[in-house]
Amino acid sequence: MRNENCTELKTLTAETTINVRFGETDAMGVVWHGNYLKYFEDAREAFGLVHNMAYLDFYNAGYFTPIVKSEVDYKSPIHYGEKARIIARLLYSPAAKIIFEYEIFNLNTNRISATGKTIQIFLNAASRELEINKPDFYKAWEKSAGLL
Amino acid sequence: MRNENCTELKTLTAETTINVRFGETDAMGVVWHGNYLKYFEDAREAFGLVHNMAYLDFYNAGYFTPIVKSEVDYKSPIHYGEKARIIARLLYSPAAKIIFEYEIFNLNTNRISATGKTIQIFLNAASRELEINKPDFYKAWEKSAGLL
Amino acid sequence: MRNENCTELKTLTAETTINVRFGETDAMGVVWHGNYLKYFEDAREAFGLVHNMAYLDFYNAGYFTPIVKSEVDYKSPIHYGEKARIIARLLYSPAAKIIFEYEIFNLNTNRISATGKTIQIFLNAASRELEINKPDFYKAWEKSAGLL
Amino acid sequence: MRNENCTELKTLTAETTINVRFGETDAMGVVWHGNYLKYFEDAREAFGLVHNMAYLDFYNAGYFTPIVKSEVDYKSPIHYGEKARIIARLLYSPAAKIIFEYEIFNLNTNRISATGKTIQIFLNAASRELEINKPDFYKAWEKSAGLL
Repeated sequence: MRNENCTELKTLTAETTINVRFGETDAMGVVWHGNYLKYFEDAREAFGLVHNMAYLDFYNAGYFTPIVKSEVDYKSPIHYGEKARIIARLLYSPAAKIIFEYEIFNLNTNRISATGKTIQIFLNAASRELEINKPDFYKAWEKSAGLL
Repeated sequence: MRNENCTELKTLTAETTINVRFGETDAMGVVWHGNYLKYFEDAREAFGLVHNMAYLDFYNAGYFTPIVKSEVDYKSPIHYGEKARIIARLLYSPAAKIIFEYEIFNLNTNRISATGKTIQIFLNAASRELEINKPDFYKAWEKSAGLL
Repeated sequence: MRNENCTELKTLTAETTINVRFGETDAMGVVWHGNYLKYFEDAREAFGLVHNMAYLDFYNAGYFTPIVKSEVDYKSPIHYGEKARIIARLLYSPAAKIIFEYEIFNLNTNRISATGKTIQIFLNAASRELEINKPDFYKAWEKSAGLL
Repeated sequence: MRNENCTELKTLTAETTINVRFGETDAMGVVWHGNYLKYFEDAREAFGLVHNMAYLDFYNAGYFTPIVKSEVDYKSPIHYGEKARIIARLLYSPAAKIIFEYEIFNLNTNRISATGKTIQIFLNAASRELEINKPDFYKAWEKSAGLL
């Protein structure tokens, strides 16, 4: 329920659980740091399915949404054989940007493994030009999803 | 030099040298087995540049050449910090196939690390249909390269 | 049920379902061929969990089981957004080898995407020496699993 | 030449050039964003070789140096078949941290493709405990490299 006097914007979340693949570890015996961006991608996928705004929905509407910024803070390692929960939280942005924050939680150690953030922009799939304004289909979705 | 009485078909080779990336190793401390297919790809790239038949040449002629078969025999590991030479050898095929054999040589241990093979086919890039016959541009290249 | 007069050896299977990650596709818009070895790995993981012989069980018994041979036959592509089922079937081997056959089934197209095979050997984790004979713990497991 | 009156700290740089692998692209036809962290790793490798402080030097001194933070700002895409130069710049840090800044330059388009940053810490390889202070071998190297 939204409080009319509350100025905080709503966020939407989704989560997914992954098993660490052997090929995702490195010679230190833990998940290679670059693979956390794959886990973030997994959580965005889960988000798209749950909230009806998947990558293919963007694509079918004529847009690519490439990542223009990524940040990861690594807190504790994930080993082979461990499971992790990845949570993605969409933040409302007035600009034509898609901003996600992430949390990776090691389910075996009960510790936060990493936090992070990505920013995506809207690119016209045909012209590959940047969209300065949010596309209408996306604004309609933000409203229906209660993000506005 | 080709012997006119020799029935053996000519092969073409190319090679490249790679440094093992830390992110390519796994928790056993050696290159993860799936990454050998990346090294094969590196050698095909080198082949394309040396012999003027790169992936983009296929693409510009209207073809994709997806891999339909891969085989790798792993002989000895490659560790982080080691260098390896990857050799690709194109075998002549009368069919509309591109057949490469590979050898990966660990330059630090002086041992063969792996051998392998890939088979590619010709796909019409527009229709994504299989080409039963070798495209003319490729037959012309085979001739000019002395492969026939 | 095993027929006492039947000379065919039993096989054990396990399966898992994967969602194709965007980062697993390539510029042809389909899963990059090298990633199929990751999917095979996913199926081996599932096998290990279902049949109580996971990678960590080998490790805790003092063995690594590196892959010495891999084969993949690519039949039809998997696109981003599609789901695939990967089935791993363990074949009985009298030698000190672990032989798996695989089938990848595209759940969106209802077509077989790939078949494949891997062979693993037993390596003493401490000495990194090849084990000529099957370790006792593995023979015991084969018996209890009904593979013999 | 160092100006005695100058309070700016010296930085050390190294660079490497990479060819984009086909398997590093994604279905948008450009390098998948997670692979930029591999390119950063390539530049750190080059740095280690040029400045005699490679990953194995840390390891042989008894330390792992895991990444605790990564940031990437993506400016323009890199396509298959393009070459890129990756520059790593080590910043002096008074704390027990290794801070690199990166620039990826697309040699085909003459545009900056990305900038980024990583922070590494010192971990005792045996105990996996965090080192609060810079190890002596590293301080000696900083001095000899003129970073102090």
